[in-house]
Amino acid sequence: MEWDILNIIAIVAFAFSGAIVALEEKYDIFGVYVLGLAASFGGGIIRNVLIGVPVIPLWEQGFLLKTALFAITIIYLLPKRWLKSWNRWNDFFDAIGLGAFTIQGALYGIALQLPPGGIILCSVATGAGGGLLRDILARRRPMILHQGIYALWALLAGLLLGFGFIQSNNPVQLYLLFLVIILLRIFSIIYQWHLRIRNLENT
Amino acid sequence: MEWDILNIIAIVAFAFSGAIVALEEKYDIFGVYVLGLAASFGGGIIRNVLIGVPVIPLWEQGFLLKTALFAITIIYLLPKRWLKSWNRWNDFFDAIGLGAFTIQGALYGIALQLPPGGIILCSVATGAGGGLLRDILARRRPMILHQGIYALWALLAGLLLGFGFIQSNNPVQLYLLFLVIILLRIFSIIYQWHLRIRNLENT
Amino acid sequence: MEWDILNIIAIVAFAFSGAIVALEEKYDIFGVYVLGLAASFGGGIIRNVLIGVPVIPLWEQGFLLKTALFAITIIYLLPKRWLKSWNRWNDFFDAIGLGAFTIQGALYGIALQLPPGGIILCSVATGAGGGLLRDILARRRPMILHQGIYALWALLAGLLLGFGFIQSNNPVQLYLLFLVIILLRIFSIIYQWHLRIRNLENT
Repeated sequence: MEWDILNIIAIVAFAFSGAIVALEEKYDIFGVYVLGLAASFGGGIIRNVLIGVPVIPLWEQGFLLKTALFAITIIYLLPKRWLKSWNRWNDFFDAIGLGAFTIQGALYGIALQLPPGGIILCSVATGAGGGLLRDILARRRPMILHQGIYALWALLAGLLLGFGFIQSNNPVQLYLLFLVIILLRIFSIIYQWHLRIRNLENT
Repeated sequence: MEWDILNIIAIVAFAFSGAIVALEEKYDIFGVYVLGLAASFGGGIIRNVLIGVPVIPLWEQGFLLKTALFAITIIYLLPKRWLKSWNRWNDFFDAIGLGAFTIQGALYGIALQLPPGGIILCSVATGAGGGLLRDILARRRPMILHQGIYALWALLAGLLLGFGFIQSNNPVQLYLLFLVIILLRIFSIIYQWHLRIRNLENT
Repeated sequence: MEWDILNIIAIVAFAFSGAIVALEEKYDIFGVYVLGLAASFGGGIIRNVLIGVPVIPLWEQGFLLKTALFAITIIYLLPKRWLKSWNRWNDFFDAIGLGAFTIQGALYGIALQLPPGGIILCSVATGAGGGLLRDILARRRPMILHQGIYALWALLAGLLLGFGFIQSNNPVQLYLLFLVIILLRIFSIIYQWHLRIRNLENT
């Protein structure tokens, strides 16, 4: 069904972001593939570890895995000047990826008949886990922990689906939520929304 | 029983420490909650992964989870000058947290009828894992790996319970062990006990 | 059978490397043991998490665990000038460890009757995971992600065994593969083979 398409878009967007980060960190081709895969599949892996369910083996996700490998290869082969303008597109794809993974994570939790707290955890872990793993492997400050309004939208989706405000079997509502998350994320970037960051130092 | 009280104290102490570290690293509110939860529940998660047992889902630990979220919220809302004097209290709460988690971890291993080696692993992983995860997410040198005499007390508790020198069904002995760990940890800080650190450089 | 001997050599080689890295980072004795164990057992742990199989508890690997602890203790007690010349030997032992773990990982995947993709994943994760975990705990740039031709040999072994070019029940072929991996890894160091690293900066 349609979620497969969104899932593919999310995998591609995160595979792109992982590969780009690896190139920026001057990792070699192996590092580029590892970070690309970590960003695109890390969310699902972290989610399953946290909810105590066996990780779905990569090779059972054959088509998604091939898609991710193909996306990473494209980044690796792209002319340098194309990569330079990547950041503009990155935010857009990343927002789509966040929206799709967040909703997919919540649906995963609902399918396992988890309580609302579990659905929220699935939603946040799936949406934000890949970026977290990518940043740890790249020795960067994890973006989701300091770059305001990112994981908040994942949390929002988890809350709405977890407490049943949005029905998981209603495609129209899901697509609306998907659109809203993408827009909120893009607005956060454009208007530089930030969550209050407390400053412990004297100013 | 009484261990629940100690468990709550440990969760609160580690939630405090995670939230403080996140504020020091200028992480946003999401980062503060993630680090607080990572510090308070990370030890149990790492322990279960290492012993090959499914992780206990966060939402099944309802009361402890609410307690941790409440503790993190307190830190987030506290006036700045209170946080400044936190470090003095931190060491004390942290010692209590270490003692409680260490013993709880060993009892968890005993309940699973693990051999002594497994009980020691449970004890150390539960007591030290949360701080390790917190420090990795904050990109800090993991405190437990270089700040002398910390994990040693977790190891000690694991050894004593693992080899049966202390009986897991004897509350008096457990409470005595709990007190001894707290005192040893506090003495380590006050008298600056350090484990021999070998220096590879010429001096 | 003979793989036990190779497994022991691999465990010792990686335990050495983890302990040395911890000493270089001025971690204390606890950190030395944790990094030694993380390097020697981390590959197997990461592999099992990724393929959704419960982690084999450390204490069930009694002899290997004792061997690793013994190896770490040796490093901790060695005279300083011996450690200085360690790097020369390190590359050699590390190559043996890579070869042995890589093949052992592939055989593990074959024993679980995984498809070729799964066998390749087992091979790479077992061979490269320990070094990755060691470097993250030491806050170093993960060597396997940027130091050219390292994980490539693990990938090669996985490919050859996964697609059946080399038969897993033929000791002669396995030993030949083992030798070839060691030689390729040592040649990579001596002749400084590097995988193409793309440079995003203008040069």
